[in-house]
Amino acid sequence: MEINFTSFSDFDPDTTVLEVARVEDVAFDKTPLIPAIVQDVNTGRVLTLAYMNREALAMTLALKQTVFWSRSRQELWHKGATSGNFQDVVGIYLDCDSDALLLLVQPHGPACHTGAYTCFHKKIKQS
Amino acid sequence: MEINFTSFSDFDPDTTVLEVARVEDVAFDKTPLIPAIVQDVNTGRVLTLAYMNREALAMTLALKQTVFWSRSRQELWHKGATSGNFQDVVGIYLDCDSDALLLLVQPHGPACHTGAYTCFHKKIKQS
Repeated sequence: MEINFTSFSDFDPDTTVLEVARVEDVAFDKTPLIPAIVQDVNTGRVLTLAYMNREALAMTLALKQTVFWSRSRQELWHKGATSGNFQDVVGIYLDCDSDALLLLVQPHGPACHTGAYTCFHKKIKQS
Repeated sequence: MEINFTSFSDFDPDTTVLEVARVEDVAFDKTPLIPAIVQDVNTGRVLTLAYMNREALAMTLALKQTVFWSRSRQELWHKGATSGNFQDVVGIYLDCDSDALLLLVQPHGPACHTGAYTCFHKKIKQS
């Protein structure tokens, strides 16, 4: 699938950062599987919602590429390990309640297992 | 808090839409609380991760403004009803597994209960 939309080079998520958090601040004790939003740093498009446990986030930080917890396979999942579609992590943000993550990434290929650029490729019909 | 970053007027999420889905396609039977990513249609910034049950999504479609299920208060939560910071819904997208939603919104004010523009205002320090 060819994607041909304008990238927005002025995208700087750090303009809204109010504080620096540590990995230990993420609320894994309360929520063992934290939802992680993956956003393309070039286009601003949301690519995927996946989940991270403590180990997945630690591996993400170590590899500087996204690693999730696959709920269907019940195992760690280094995105791109089989497809080559790695996602290099540019920045990791935590929300006010410390129970959701936002990852800005540089993708090496499609995010979706269907081959689509983004997993959010279905539009809900509004009447 | 003053936000002064460039908006990206070329943002058109419909360029990656591959199919049209119906409300009935959302996997509430499997996942009663579906995570809903809220994204500012003007800036592309991710504002909030919240949750919707079937009724919250129905109300969102009816009002054309975001309505979530508050897990802490265990009640429907029409965003902005008390603060005035409504979020007008521009488009609703469903992911490949039909268990995550992406809402493009026109916000009337800050998304975060802290008064911050986005809930994702904490940056995780990467070594």
